[in-house]
Amino acid sequence: MAVRETVRVGVLGCGNVGASLVRLVAEHGDVIAARVGARVEVTRVAVRDAGRTRTVAIPAGVLTEDAAAVVTDPDVDVVVEVMGGTDPARQLIETALRAGKPVVTANKELIARDGPELFRIAADAGVDLLFEASVAGGIPLIRPLRESLAGDRIRRVLGIVNGTTNYILTRMADEGAPFADALAEAQRLGYAEADPTADVEGFDAAAKAAIIATIAFGAPVGPGDVHREGITGITADDIASAARLGYVVKLLAVAEEVDGAITVRVHPAMVPVHHPLAAVREAFNAVFIEADAVGELMLYGRGAGGDPTASAVLGDLVDAARNLVAGARGATIGELTAAPFRPMAEVTTPYYVLLEAADRPGVLAAIAERFGRHGVSIASMEQRGIGADARLVFITHRAREADLMATLDDLRGTDAVRRVGSVIRVVGEEE
Amino acid sequence: MAVRETVRVGVLGCGNVGASLVRLVAEHGDVIAARVGARVEVTRVAVRDAGRTRTVAIPAGVLTEDAAAVVTDPDVDVVVEVMGGTDPARQLIETALRAGKPVVTANKELIARDGPELFRIAADAGVDLLFEASVAGGIPLIRPLRESLAGDRIRRVLGIVNGTTNYILTRMADEGAPFADALAEAQRLGYAEADPTADVEGFDAAAKAAIIATIAFGAPVGPGDVHREGITGITADDIASAARLGYVVKLLAVAEEVDGAITVRVHPAMVPVHHPLAAVREAFNAVFIEADAVGELMLYGRGAGGDPTASAVLGDLVDAARNLVAGARGATIGELTAAPFRPMAEVTTPYYVLLEAADRPGVLAAIAERFGRHGVSIASMEQRGIGADARLVFITHRAREADLMATLDDLRGTDAVRRVGSVIRVVGEEE
Repeated sequence: MAVRETVRVGVLGCGNVGASLVRLVAEHGDVIAARVGARVEVTRVAVRDAGRTRTVAIPAGVLTEDAAAVVTDPDVDVVVEVMGGTDPARQLIETALRAGKPVVTANKELIARDGPELFRIAADAGVDLLFEASVAGGIPLIRPLRESLAGDRIRRVLGIVNGTTNYILTRMADEGAPFADALAEAQRLGYAEADPTADVEGFDAAAKAAIIATIAFGAPVGPGDVHREGITGITADDIASAARLGYVVKLLAVAEEVDGAITVRVHPAMVPVHHPLAAVREAFNAVFIEADAVGELMLYGRGAGGDPTASAVLGDLVDAARNLVAGARGATIGELTAAPFRPMAEVTTPYYVLLEAADRPGVLAAIAERFGRHGVSIASMEQRGIGADARLVFITHRAREADLMATLDDLRGTDAVRRVGSVIRVVGEEE
Repeated sequence: MAVRETVRVGVLGCGNVGASLVRLVAEHGDVIAARVGARVEVTRVAVRDAGRTRTVAIPAGVLTEDAAAVVTDPDVDVVVEVMGGTDPARQLIETALRAGKPVVTANKELIARDGPELFRIAADAGVDLLFEASVAGGIPLIRPLRESLAGDRIRRVLGIVNGTTNYILTRMADEGAPFADALAEAQRLGYAEADPTADVEGFDAAAKAAIIATIAFGAPVGPGDVHREGITGITADDIASAARLGYVVKLLAVAEEVDGAITVRVHPAMVPVHHPLAAVREAFNAVFIEADAVGELMLYGRGAGGDPTASAVLGDLVDAARNLVAGARGATIGELTAAPFRPMAEVTTPYYVLLEAADRPGVLAAIAERFGRHGVSIASMEQRGIGADARLVFITHRAREADLMATLDDLRGTDAVRRVGSVIRVVGEEE
C-alpha cells in the first residue's frame, strides 16, 4: 500500500464551528501532521451560500454549495459535519459512511435522535463515526466514557450540560434576580436565544442526556425517553432558601442505572454546596460520573462556542485521520442492548418541598402526619412567618416519586395548607 | 496473519493496584473483549514473594517471582508495570519495549525521571508506552492532553495533584486546625504516610508536575526542573485570612509557557473562592487546563487508591491491546523539543503578604513606600490590631518574584516591621 501523504477533509457547514475548525487545521498543521502521520488538509467546504462573507478565508476551489457531492467525492477522505439540523445532515452522514468515509460530527440533535442507527451503519461500513463535540462542547466526555472507563461500570452521570440555564441560575443566585430578568440579561449577552424554549425548558439538555446515557450504559436512549422539566418555575425565593439550607439550584441531566433499569431525566435540582457541581458557575458545563472502580470523576469546561467546539471536532478529526493512516479504526460503539426504563413514579430521591400554611398551633403536626401517611420521612424543616401565614420548607429523606406526589395531593386538600409551592429534587447528597 | 484470539498480559507487581487490576480484568472480561476485539487475559503476575497472602486469587501457574522472565516471555503480549520504584522497573520496562511489547505503567517517579528516554525507546521499537495512571490516579488526564487537545495550544496547567496535602488543607480550613493536627488526622486515616515528607514538602506533586509539563508543552521536564515549596509553613491563620479575603489555600502544581519559556512549580497558592479548583476538597485531585481554543477545562477525581488507579491502568491496557489486535499503534509522544526555563525570579504573579508591624501612625505609609520603591503595586490591604502590634495583610497586583523578594528584604530591615509572616502566591485570579 502506498504511504498516504495527505488526509483530505470535506467540511459540511462553515458557521462559527466550521470557520474555527478550518482556522485551527491551518494554524496547527505541523502539530497535527506529527500526530496523524500525514498532512491534514481541508479540501472541500460545503456551504449554503458561497457568496457570503466569512471570518475565515477559503480558497475558491475549496468552497462549494454542493454538500452531496462532497460526501461522495473520491478526493475526500474524511467528512466533518458541522452544519447542524437533522436534515439533510442525516442523509449526508449516512452516504459518507456507506462510501467508507469516516465521519466526525458535532450534531447533538442528530446523534440524540439517530445515534444508534448511525453507529450500526458505521460499524457495518467499518469506519469511524466520532461525535465528541455533540455533548458539552470542548469538554472531553465521550472519549473518557468510551475509552478511559472501558471495563468500569458506570452507575450514574450527573451533568450541567446547558450553559444558558446555568448562566441564568448563577445570576439569580448571585443577584437575587427573578428568572425573567436573568433571562433577559442572558439574551442581551448572547447566552440565550430570542426564543429560549430549547434551553429553559430543558430540550437541549435532554438531547445531551440521551447521548450520555446511550454511551454510558450501552443502551439506545432517545430524547423521547428522557423525563424533562425546565427552570421557568424556579423563583429567586427557592434559590435563597436553597442557599440557607446549604444547596445550590442547578438544571441537571441525570442518567442512572439501578438494578438493571435506566432512568434519564432533566430537571432543576438542589445540589449540596460542597458538591463539585455546585461550583460550576456562569455558562460553564460539567459532567460528574460515578463509576464502580474509578469512583467519582468530573469533567468541566466550556459547553459551547465556536473555538471550544471546534477543538473537540479537531480532536476527533485527528483520531479519525490517524486511524485512516494506520489502516486501523478506532473504538466502535459496541452493540447497543435495549435496557428497561424505570418509570419516574418509581424513582427515589430526596425532595425539597415549599408549603405556605396557616401559622397556628397544630398545623405542622397535621402536615407532618400527611408526609408520614405516605411513607415520606422528613430530614429537616425550616419555618418562617409571612404575615398570618408561615412558609415551611421541608427536605425529605429519599422517597419514591409516587409517594411524594400522593403526599402533595393530600397536602393540597388539607385545610391549613394555603399553597404547595416549589418541589425540587435533591441530587448529590452523600448517603 | 492469523486472527489474534487472546491478548496475554504480564503484570509486574501485585499490591493494591495490581490486585485491583487483576480483579477488574476478570470481572469485566466480556466488555473488554468487545472493545479490544479479543479476550484479554492476565497470564503472568510477578511478585516479590509468591508465598504471601493476597486479596485476589491468582492461579499457581500465573504467579511468579521472576519479573525479568515475564518481560521477555514470548507468551506475554503486553506488560503492565505496577510495582513502583525506579529500579528494577526501569530495566524491566526497557527490556519489554525493546522486545516489542507494549507497556502500561502507573509509575510516576519513573516517568517523571526517565519519561523522555523511555518515550524514545518506545517510538524506536514502534510499540505503545502508556502511563495515564502515573498522574492523578483515575482521572483521565494524559489522554485528553495527548488526544483531545491535539491541535490546541496549552498555555497553563494548574493542578491539585496530591490528595494528602489537599486533605490536610481542607481540614485546616473547615476546622481551623493547625497543620500538625490535620497531618496527624490524615496519618490516622491512612491518607498520609508515617514519613509525610514526599507529600507535605511537594516532592510527589513535583514529579507529577514534571510529567504534566512534558506532555502539555512537548518539552522534556524532569523533577529537578520544578521549583518546589511544601505546605508545612501554612498556618491556620493564613487560611482564615485567605477566607476573609475570598481565597482558599491549595498546594498547586503550575506549569505554564509564556513567550516560549516554561515554568514548572509546586507551591501553596491562594485560589479565588469562585475558581473551580477552590471546590476541590478532601483527598480529591483536579487538573485545570487553559488552552487557546478549548478555553478552560478541568478534570476532577480520585488521585489515588487501588481501584481508581487500576481503572486508569485498565483504560490504557484496553488501548494497547486494541492497537495490538488492529496491528496499529496508538498516539505516540511526538519528538520532545527542549524549551528554555524561566527562572523563578522572573516569574510574575500576585502575592499575599502578611506583616506584623507596630500599630502607630505613619507605619502603613512607610511600608507602602517600600512596596512602591520596588515597583510592587498593592491591590488590597487588611489591618487588624493585636496588642500593641498590627497585623497587615497585603494582596499585591501581579509582580516579578525578584521585586517582591527585594521588597521583603527591605521590609525586614524596616524599624516598624516586627516580622514578615507568610508570603503566598495568588493563582487563578481573573485579570
